[in-house]
Amino acid sequence: MAVGEDTLPELQPVRGVRLGTVSAGIKTPGRKDLVLIEVVPGTTCAAVFTRNAFCAAPVTVAKEHLQACGYTPRYLLVNTGNANAGTGQPGIDAAKSCSAAAADVTGVAVEQVLPFSTGVIGEPLPVALIEDAIPATFKALSADGWADAARGILTTDTRPKGLSVRFNCEGCDYVVTGIAKGAGMLRPDMATMLAYLATDVAVEQSVLQDMLAGVVETSFHRITVDGDTSTNDACVLLATGEAGNSTVHDAKSPLYRALYEAVEEVSVTLAQGLVRDGEGANKFVTVQVNGGGDQQECLDVAFTIAHSPLVKTALFASDPNWGRLLAAIGRAGVRDLQVELIGVYLNDVLIAEKGCRASSYTEEQGVAAMAPEEIVIRIELNRGEASAAVWTSDFSYDYVRINAEYRT
Amino acid sequence: MAVGEDTLPELQPVRGVRLGTVSAGIKTPGRKDLVLIEVVPGTTCAAVFTRNAFCAAPVTVAKEHLQACGYTPRYLLVNTGNANAGTGQPGIDAAKSCSAAAADVTGVAVEQVLPFSTGVIGEPLPVALIEDAIPATFKALSADGWADAARGILTTDTRPKGLSVRFNCEGCDYVVTGIAKGAGMLRPDMATMLAYLATDVAVEQSVLQDMLAGVVETSFHRITVDGDTSTNDACVLLATGEAGNSTVHDAKSPLYRALYEAVEEVSVTLAQGLVRDGEGANKFVTVQVNGGGDQQECLDVAFTIAHSPLVKTALFASDPNWGRLLAAIGRAGVRDLQVELIGVYLNDVLIAEKGCRASSYTEEQGVAAMAPEEIVIRIELNRGEASAAVWTSDFSYDYVRINAEYRT
Repeated sequence: MAVGEDTLPELQPVRGVRLGTVSAGIKTPGRKDLVLIEVVPGTTCAAVFTRNAFCAAPVTVAKEHLQACGYTPRYLLVNTGNANAGTGQPGIDAAKSCSAAAADVTGVAVEQVLPFSTGVIGEPLPVALIEDAIPATFKALSADGWADAARGILTTDTRPKGLSVRFNCEGCDYVVTGIAKGAGMLRPDMATMLAYLATDVAVEQSVLQDMLAGVVETSFHRITVDGDTSTNDACVLLATGEAGNSTVHDAKSPLYRALYEAVEEVSVTLAQGLVRDGEGANKFVTVQVNGGGDQQECLDVAFTIAHSPLVKTALFASDPNWGRLLAAIGRAGVRDLQVELIGVYLNDVLIAEKGCRASSYTEEQGVAAMAPEEIVIRIELNRGEASAAVWTSDFSYDYVRINAEYRT
Repeated sequence: MAVGEDTLPELQPVRGVRLGTVSAGIKTPGRKDLVLIEVVPGTTCAAVFTRNAFCAAPVTVAKEHLQACGYTPRYLLVNTGNANAGTGQPGIDAAKSCSAAAADVTGVAVEQVLPFSTGVIGEPLPVALIEDAIPATFKALSADGWADAARGILTTDTRPKGLSVRFNCEGCDYVVTGIAKGAGMLRPDMATMLAYLATDVAVEQSVLQDMLAGVVETSFHRITVDGDTSTNDACVLLATGEAGNSTVHDAKSPLYRALYEAVEEVSVTLAQGLVRDGEGANKFVTVQVNGGGDQQECLDVAFTIAHSPLVKTALFASDPNWGRLLAAIGRAGVRDLQVELIGVYLNDVLIAEKGCRASSYTEEQGVAAMAPEEIVIRIELNRGEASAAVWTSDFSYDYVRINAEYRT
């Protein structure tokens, strides 16, 4: 079950990026499970990794390599079928060994190869299988390899996720293309959200890192399926500079702003795609909180609603249960919350105000508002100017089934 | 479904307390749904209420009355079938009206009556039905009314919860008896955890309040079913002084300590009873965190595990999924967590250490450890001397069914 249409839009090549996807036989024979992303020398790289203290071995190694190579990697090596997480020191050695095997093929430094893994936790990474398949990934490298790679990084996702955005700035054309997999920590054993974005704009690394940090905050950090975070999450933004622009150094420049918007559009679409594809998801829900004193309290209210199992089971039942929404708002920890000011809307239907059911509200309105696959829960706090949105899904029998039966 | 045995132990009378339970026909005709608790003049009262900003009308009124009567109420009036929550100003008026009706019967001040409600959110309280039944509750008052009251305050609970503890201090006998209903916010529409405890010890009110605050911290605040909190939660401790002791003023006196232990024993048993009776609960799980730098970080780790839907679905499946436990520990927000120091146990089986599966661990051991209805997840942080335990249940199909289908 997933929400919305299942079509991968056409993914545009990004000058300076080639991708190769092959089968290494890691978990399922014949399944394409190994992706190599190559970028031209001089490409700058920004990355955001999981904040989970139990991060997986490839996360540790990728961070180490990124720093050692001055944030100018040449290759990203991604395998599915095995997360190389909960594997201790042997896992670190395995990730380094695979990186070295890729580096050896073209003679780059091992630190210029970043390893990423997703799949089952706690099993040793089948290093020999991966190393044997690495030469084939180089042979498969192609500028048109994005769609294959979007499929190659999947684990139990039901569909690939990707988007390209072309934009023009001061007479020049640029592109941002991105792919992603996973649904937060929906599938912890098939851990991981992975996202790879690339652009042909030339951007100074520190500026690129700030851009990615800002974008992630309003895209991948705004989605939640169950509040759990993965040991392997990573989001990478590559800027090849092959468009030939003079390098972006300044966050106030028109090209920075234009690129930011394109990267944000791709990231928000990918992030929403992860929620839509959450196993067990029957609803795609936007929780929009307006009128907060600051953005943090808007996020606190939005995430408290989005994480509430009671709200999520009501969403599954298409039940306009405003009592559960009020209760969630009430425990979000907002200081001096004046409940009588708050308005609660389903889409555009006012369902609760002044601490109780709205006098204009009818159960029929609520049922109609809950019926579609896509729903907006809007909270008007009426105490300030800040606002924030997060995206989530419902809690269904399938959620329990998938997460209870997955290992068996 | 509920965990463990369904037997209400014999509840001992508390000198100075009488209880009357009748049917007012609030929701289900013939069902006993209205409880009056009477205490003798001079009884001191301590209370802890929900911290939810959207608290129900009776919570607002009970707090107001408690303060106005100097924390010496004479009557507690509890109805089930209707939570009088999300009812705005008319709900406040309704709670006051019922309190006044009870006060009128015996001529006490209206502020000496504390109202409590539990049941459906957002429906007007049927004041006339309750007022009509109040005289009958007075006629039913009896020192032996505890067991009836334990049943009369239930909503969708499958069993009554109660316990008496007798203790002797410096040659005198005392008793603590308590009853409770609910399972946290498991059933928000049938909202509410309510707990009423009484003792015949004479205790100064401020000392009694400190005692209750301390006990709640290690009992009712240590349980979680789904992380949601109710709009109606209340816990009340009454001290009648009918035992004839000289009033307890000092938290260091032997009688204070003896009473504290008895109140804590009753509260912990009631709190655990709520988790065991959680609808959809197949497991009763103790999450014990030891070796923390301070108690807060032990609680952070314990609650992150206890709230994790991924851990809870694994518990439902009796799946010894140590990867989900590591991931939950890793995101609990503990500063400078050294994952290689942490040991994870199921009952007494070491399942993970040094960031990966324990070398001594076998899947057979894990499966055997997960099989019983009652399980201890023990985390050894090995970074300090603090420890804390919380109690929770699993996440089952029934949890989704109950919470998705309840309103329909």
